[in-house]
Amino acid sequence: MPADPADGPPHESIVDLVGALAYGELSAFAHLAADAELAPTLAGRRQMSAMASTEFGHHQQLVDRLVELGADPEQAMAPFVAALESYHDITSPSTWLESVVKAFVGDGMAADFYNEVAAFADPATSALIGSVLVDAGRAEFAVREVQAAIVADPAVAGRLALWARRLVGEAISQAQHVLADRDSLTMLLVQGTGDLAGIAALLTRITDRHGERMVALGL
Amino acid sequence: MPADPADGPPHESIVDLVGALAYGELSAFAHLAADAELAPTLAGRRQMSAMASTEFGHHQQLVDRLVELGADPEQAMAPFVAALESYHDITSPSTWLESVVKAFVGDGMAADFYNEVAAFADPATSALIGSVLVDAGRAEFAVREVQAAIVADPAVAGRLALWARRLVGEAISQAQHVLADRDSLTMLLVQGTGDLAGIAALLTRITDRHGERMVALGL
Repeated sequence: MPADPADGPPHESIVDLVGALAYGELSAFAHLAADAELAPTLAGRRQMSAMASTEFGHHQQLVDRLVELGADPEQAMAPFVAALESYHDITSPSTWLESVVKAFVGDGMAADFYNEVAAFADPATSALIGSVLVDAGRAEFAVREVQAAIVADPAVAGRLALWARRLVGEAISQAQHVLADRDSLTMLLVQGTGDLAGIAALLTRITDRHGERMVALGL
Repeated sequence: MPADPADGPPHESIVDLVGALAYGELSAFAHLAADAELAPTLAGRRQMSAMASTEFGHHQQLVDRLVELGADPEQAMAPFVAALESYHDITSPSTWLESVVKAFVGDGMAADFYNEVAAFADPATSALIGSVLVDAGRAEFAVREVQAAIVADPAVAGRLALWARRLVGEAISQAQHVLADRDSLTMLLVQGTGDLAGIAALLTRITDRHGERMVALGL
């Protein structure tokens, strides 16, 4: 457990990072499982349930990592419950397509952010986070569902584009709350990126990847 | 694929059995995931979410088996959707303890029934069903939660005993609907048990195991 900053980032910030992500995966599990009930077909329901189940597996791996780090998993997750539940409450999908866009665009942006921050963690934590944040076929699924819907009714595209913009706005708002509350995470980000130019470059990369997802969906 | 009864039970009855169980696991996944939100602690929520995720893995194995049997998984599951959703709608838990009892008593009784019928299927199907219906620590979890609640408030026991009786009644009612609808499953059961005495013995074994679970819970 590094006490000296020269050994790596402070232990507290790593526990915060893994704790936030572990709760994020548990929360994603619950919301994907609930959203699967919106599916118009058994195939769609199975696909979103499979995503939920995969997220739970990731949650378990992250909880195991918290234990390895000597942290109490529930204490480590607790500070992030409110922000993540607020995000999900405010962005509760009312249609199947909204849930598909959320699973791809919202979760995709969160994954990009965690991946960026994970680069500043110790190698074992960083490798684990990289492995739990793989996309796992979600892109093809979302693109297929959304493009088919737009072909059937082109007006869908405008509504879903607005929905995606709302998801991003709420995600950024909740991320700001978390960073304002957790100095250790802010320090990890600032020290990792080096300076404001580094933070700006990170945000540009995340925004670019978000734009690529929107283009892939035809939004 | 046996066409001659001498080779084993008719193919249609095996597809029905695996289809019913595959949908049952998908449905269990969805309802356990939803019920996890009733948990008063993050530990309880994690535990019920883990059960849900395990059920989804079983669902996937059964779907793979349907494909091996040359069946279309969605067509094979479709005849059982209504009965299983009726059961879950009628037995939607309103408290955490009700959801724990349902996960142990209701799902346990269903598992016993499937296990009994699986004995009459071909060896590969029978082995798969046996492997997906293992209890996986659910008993200890349920016993711990329910006994702690009874210690805190003995009046809980009577209410939960009534709830368990209702679960069993609804499960039997839905099973009767399914058997009345699906001749192939009824034939599998009748031919497997041999005669009415065989069916009576099967029902006695299921009832006995149910009684053991109730005793374990202190109900």
